[in-house]
Amino acid sequence: MAILSDTQILESWHKNVDPWADAIAEQSIPSRVMVTDQAIIHAVTALQPQTVIDIGCGEGWLVRALSERGIDVTGTDAVAGLIEKARSAGAGRFEQIAYEDLSASRITQRLDLAVCNFSLLGKESVEHVFATVPQLLNPDGHFVVQTLHPVICCGDKPYTDGWREGSWVGFSGDFTDPAPWYFRTIESWLQLFLDNGMRIEQMQEPLHPDTGQPASLIMTGTVI
Amino acid sequence: MAILSDTQILESWHKNVDPWADAIAEQSIPSRVMVTDQAIIHAVTALQPQTVIDIGCGEGWLVRALSERGIDVTGTDAVAGLIEKARSAGAGRFEQIAYEDLSASRITQRLDLAVCNFSLLGKESVEHVFATVPQLLNPDGHFVVQTLHPVICCGDKPYTDGWREGSWVGFSGDFTDPAPWYFRTIESWLQLFLDNGMRIEQMQEPLHPDTGQPASLIMTGTVI
Repeated sequence: MAILSDTQILESWHKNVDPWADAIAEQSIPSRVMVTDQAIIHAVTALQPQTVIDIGCGEGWLVRALSERGIDVTGTDAVAGLIEKARSAGAGRFEQIAYEDLSASRITQRLDLAVCNFSLLGKESVEHVFATVPQLLNPDGHFVVQTLHPVICCGDKPYTDGWREGSWVGFSGDFTDPAPWYFRTIESWLQLFLDNGMRIEQMQEPLHPDTGQPASLIMTGTVI
Repeated sequence: MAILSDTQILESWHKNVDPWADAIAEQSIPSRVMVTDQAIIHAVTALQPQTVIDIGCGEGWLVRALSERGIDVTGTDAVAGLIEKARSAGAGRFEQIAYEDLSASRITQRLDLAVCNFSLLGKESVEHVFATVPQLLNPDGHFVVQTLHPVICCGDKPYTDGWREGSWVGFSGDFTDPAPWYFRTIESWLQLFLDNGMRIEQMQEPLHPDTGQPASLIMTGTVI
């Protein structure tokens, strides 16, 4: 069995740039179209930021959506192929930066808000993002994270932090080598905010209209 | 169908004083014995309070458990029969006070910590407790709430705030007239802290060893 790690996540994404960009462009992920896209746009715009960094921006849809609303947005992603897709798709400023390379010297602009939309999948890389984000933000800046709802996506496995095998079930046959991901409990997610100098501003649980259950969890922290 | 209300909760508890006190004395609720009793004791004592109020103390086991650890504890409950049981069971200071009657003039002592252990079951009564607790606490005082884990106990119903029918399934046949209860999402619980001048200090999800799933949710707020 392969060792599950942050490195493996990146390897998988390098291989799946094209089908992923197609899946987003074709709006083929129902929960995103029905619930979570609007939920993250609303969570960000409700805080009225003038400057935003979208960390793990992928092919850049959220950067474009926020730019259209008059916000100055920079998207970063580790995967060169995704950044190329993002740059060719239209407006927005994009930089290829791995999570581990994010720092206050690499990103010199100070921002009102950082957002991670389903982009925090690893272990050490995610811990580095949480440690770095407060240094990138203005005083009282916000960090908004949307992720799978831990209790809903836990399945039959124990509800404890740990690596899990990935899967492309529900996606087109063009996807290969699903990325592993690091499961975190709600307790563990909140602790990441609290341990890195942020207070919890809000938690939101956008409902999927078909199931009546949360489609995701959105946590908003504020730099103390 | 009966109207589900805070009043009905109290009516049910007045009828179930004896079987409830027996159930606690006989340690007949496995999740309490295996997980949640120790979890709430640990959550409270980790904050090293000198003075505590246990709101909705029932027959008083937590007041006694904390008193044994050298903490000055007052227990309050609306149900006269439960307060009588508490007083006759040993140490601890108990007062019969309904949630709606809690106030900074009724409770003149200022405390380091307030705790509600599976005792916040209603709607308006719970909102009153959250509005009042910060007035009862010293600066930087804590409010610790243990409750059923919303996502785990939601069942097949929609994951939205609202009244639900009660049940004594799993309890002895001596219980009658189960109390209705007001379901709250995690988002809604946190908002109660944030809207009443508290910040979220921690969320804990103690695991049930049999299922590997959270047996409860413990939220700790700190007065800002």
